[in-house]
Amino acid sequence: MATLLVAAAAAAGGVVAGKKLAEKGGAKRPGEDADDPPVAFNTDAYNNHDCAKEAKAMSYLAMEYPSVHPHDVNTPDNWIKRHPSLIRLTGKHPFNVEAPPAELYDHGFISPVNLHVVRNHGAVPQLDWATHTISFGGNVPAPFEIGMDELASMDAITFPCLVVCAGNRRKEQNMIKKSIGFNWGPVGIGNTYWTGVPLRVLLNRAGITKPGPGARFVCLAGPEGELPKTYDGQDGGPGSYGTSIDMETALDPTCDVIVAYEQNGKRLHPDHGFPCRVLIPGYIGGRMIKFLSKVIVTDAESKNFYHFNDNRVLPVGVDAERATEEGWWFKEEYIINNLNINGAVIHPQHEETLPNSQKTITIKGYAYSGGGRKVIRAEVSFDQGDSWRLANITVREKPRWAAGSSGDKAKHWCWCHWEYEADAAEVRGAAEICFRAFDQSQNCMPERPTWNVMGMLNNPWFRVRVHPSADGKGVTFEHPTIAGPTPGGWMQKMAAEKGGELLWGWGGEGGPAAPPRADLRSPGTPPKDQNGGAPVSAAQVSQ
Amino acid sequence: MATLLVAAAAAAGGVVAGKKLAEKGGAKRPGEDADDPPVAFNTDAYNNHDCAKEAKAMSYLAMEYPSVHPHDVNTPDNWIKRHPSLIRLTGKHPFNVEAPPAELYDHGFISPVNLHVVRNHGAVPQLDWATHTISFGGNVPAPFEIGMDELASMDAITFPCLVVCAGNRRKEQNMIKKSIGFNWGPVGIGNTYWTGVPLRVLLNRAGITKPGPGARFVCLAGPEGELPKTYDGQDGGPGSYGTSIDMETALDPTCDVIVAYEQNGKRLHPDHGFPCRVLIPGYIGGRMIKFLSKVIVTDAESKNFYHFNDNRVLPVGVDAERATEEGWWFKEEYIINNLNINGAVIHPQHEETLPNSQKTITIKGYAYSGGGRKVIRAEVSFDQGDSWRLANITVREKPRWAAGSSGDKAKHWCWCHWEYEADAAEVRGAAEICFRAFDQSQNCMPERPTWNVMGMLNNPWFRVRVHPSADGKGVTFEHPTIAGPTPGGWMQKMAAEKGGELLWGWGGEGGPAAPPRADLRSPGTPPKDQNGGAPVSAAQVSQ
Repeated sequence: MATLLVAAAAAAGGVVAGKKLAEKGGAKRPGEDADDPPVAFNTDAYNNHDCAKEAKAMSYLAMEYPSVHPHDVNTPDNWIKRHPSLIRLTGKHPFNVEAPPAELYDHGFISPVNLHVVRNHGAVPQLDWATHTISFGGNVPAPFEIGMDELASMDAITFPCLVVCAGNRRKEQNMIKKSIGFNWGPVGIGNTYWTGVPLRVLLNRAGITKPGPGARFVCLAGPEGELPKTYDGQDGGPGSYGTSIDMETALDPTCDVIVAYEQNGKRLHPDHGFPCRVLIPGYIGGRMIKFLSKVIVTDAESKNFYHFNDNRVLPVGVDAERATEEGWWFKEEYIINNLNINGAVIHPQHEETLPNSQKTITIKGYAYSGGGRKVIRAEVSFDQGDSWRLANITVREKPRWAAGSSGDKAKHWCWCHWEYEADAAEVRGAAEICFRAFDQSQNCMPERPTWNVMGMLNNPWFRVRVHPSADGKGVTFEHPTIAGPTPGGWMQKMAAEKGGELLWGWGGEGGPAAPPRADLRSPGTPPKDQNGGAPVSAAQVSQ
Repeated sequence: MATLLVAAAAAAGGVVAGKKLAEKGGAKRPGEDADDPPVAFNTDAYNNHDCAKEAKAMSYLAMEYPSVHPHDVNTPDNWIKRHPSLIRLTGKHPFNVEAPPAELYDHGFISPVNLHVVRNHGAVPQLDWATHTISFGGNVPAPFEIGMDELASMDAITFPCLVVCAGNRRKEQNMIKKSIGFNWGPVGIGNTYWTGVPLRVLLNRAGITKPGPGARFVCLAGPEGELPKTYDGQDGGPGSYGTSIDMETALDPTCDVIVAYEQNGKRLHPDHGFPCRVLIPGYIGGRMIKFLSKVIVTDAESKNFYHFNDNRVLPVGVDAERATEEGWWFKEEYIINNLNINGAVIHPQHEETLPNSQKTITIKGYAYSGGGRKVIRAEVSFDQGDSWRLANITVREKPRWAAGSSGDKAKHWCWCHWEYEADAAEVRGAAEICFRAFDQSQNCMPERPTWNVMGMLNNPWFRVRVHPSADGKGVTFEHPTIAGPTPGGWMQKMAAEKGGELLWGWGGEGGPAAPPRADLRSPGTPPKDQNGGAPVSAAQVSQ
């Protein structure tokens, strides 16, 4: 794994390594490069570096697993080769998976395609590169169909981009109260190179050059019959999964919306949308339609069932029944498009032990935000938020747009990795390691979760509990949950004690948002010493 | 005041009233208007409605106060007529003021110029419309100077926009620990119509049409000698106040950066930048340079002293000494441009009483976010965040851009007002009224404040305490602080008990972020009844 990490860092030319950042106090500006002399007015400052070469160098991270997994043999997906480490969140089929945290993270900034998040609503459509087409229709002056060979012959762009399921970290919400949705852990993500043709260019070909009445939205749909269920009158046709985005986003060059046909320099894996999918940087994954078949320009939002009945964050008091009865799914305030600030601790891992003999420990994790917003602070706390330490952001991308600017127009489409080198004695004396991140609009991961009926965009502080180890020779770490049906994690234990739902302070009968510290320490744990932080006093019990 | 409120609502054509919003489930889309028929492709969907007529109708809200205030008579500002209600935050001079909360708020969506926030660094420069010029220079092919008559003869745009000092609500931070900055309450704001020429158009005239090496930033400066102090080598010249913004923002039509010369349909008041100032919607007020004199195109950020030494949010552990010693002021992560999600309760007012005889109470306040992000949820809690009620957003603007879209490109430059009609018995039984808001990127006002050395962008839940009234016949409300030097408010009282600084759980000796409920109730207060909420149990004490 260490070899892969080094290789990834060396090959990723679009990536600014942490040490370089730290030395220079920021990404190098294009004008500072010898091969990019400061000339005035006649060049474009947009640093939209094309990473095609780097993506090809990463193609070893796009390797298909060599064999079909036994779980898939008796399913419609029996032709797809999948990595055996992937955690199946919805049983064997359909295939909804995330990687074990360290297995993905330790590959470094660029993720292997095989370990990248997958969200499938049904069987993967068996599509053929030679015959697949995308139709551009609806309110366009020049409807057309395009095949894959023709698409791949057009000018393409390549850049690294994070894909995140809006349900990332949902299992924590499900421990509070069951949401409509399965148990994502904190690795419903993947950060890879993507290659494709800007959707803007294809819309231009259809005669759409700007938004306007009749052409306010772009509906995107996969093939008919992809899903077992169907709904009347939806765009995309019977059994299709579809959604829409606003025309402004589709046409804005700096939004980088593409029809992608390569990931890490190779054609898409079936689970990632072969032969083509939409990529909308900074957005939730749910709008990045896989197996793209239809693009329909409309005056109104998509009428696809999944556009309105999925990917929403409703207020806390609105459950599924009320949402349907009172029409909450159709209120425009509650649609989600951009990701929000989020992150997690990856190292130390769940159930990892820190022996008393160890002097330091490097805590590591990731963070990301939406809409291109830069993660500006990654912080850890060993006293449940009374004080915070600034972690080092070790790797992030050089933004594709406005890279020479400290303003808000520099677009950050990837995750970043962070590290904090801690005094092991201090960590052993802590009840929890808490993590939070801020983005450049000063949005911070909140202290408490806010439950919502779809369990989406869950982003409170990531809390890793610290317990005395069984052998008494150190401490053992406990993450909040384990992805999928596997029991374990401190939230799952608390929920189990409360009869399956942990109605933590959201109108229920449960305990407070975070238990008082006294409850966190097992009997016999020594109190903190002077170096390890302030002693726990009664006044500090309430957070 | 009621008359004014009605007049404002009626006249503000760019404003969508709350009831209409509620009925239609959203702002009316342009295509739905009879006079805006759905035609395809040949029109621009941008709904950049020019509010020039509405602004003229609001010119009664731009009236100058008739006389000079006695406080100003013996100051260099003895020629400026100011409203006597304004709360002077830095003594008599220089003039830094906010309005009493209800006095501003009750005027409605559009604020009177006379009650609009003012942040002056020194004496107001005495400038002359006839002779004032703005020079456009630096790395531009065609430098030029422009006078006010010429500027006012150009095509102008008019729209309502909120101006907020980045220090809004700073007094709460100062109660935690003294920051570098004076005591703003929650009304360091104003929402008025502004008229001006797009900065983009003026930059185009100077030969700048896109960002590029040599032309990455736009430095903006007031007149030389505006400030008593000066610093070597700063752009803008000796004694100037200046900053810079990125060229991408300056040139983006949808960012609406203008050189403004009218507010609510009349020429600017001296305190608001006569004869002209920059307006950067969605940004903190500190970058909207008043008395605009110089526009300088550069490759690097402004070297003005105030650009680097003001308007930053540094991490919590970084105090002023460390910031200077270790160069934190110059780290690009900590510059602030866009506002963050924020808001406050205005009604009930501080020290207002709710008698036991009253059946209902309408809680009212405002909320806003930055970068054009829409406020999607305004919520109140009567149980310190265990449960939340959705307030009604009664007034907000129809966005100037992409108004027909539910996407993220619709720009919201104004505050919104919200109301919640509560059962008075429930409010009387509560320890606090807590308020929080979410914006469309799912950013929420946080539970705890995060102290920063400049005390900027403070946006935790706004908490109004509920106490038994002195006469025993109801409850009295207590806001966290009173703007300026006036003592009062529950945070100020708590800080006073701790010796002037309330090191609330941020590494200090103080108590927790919110005191346990038991501490909030005065002796003799009856416990909550079944209708008023759950009884306070030991398990609920910790938040």
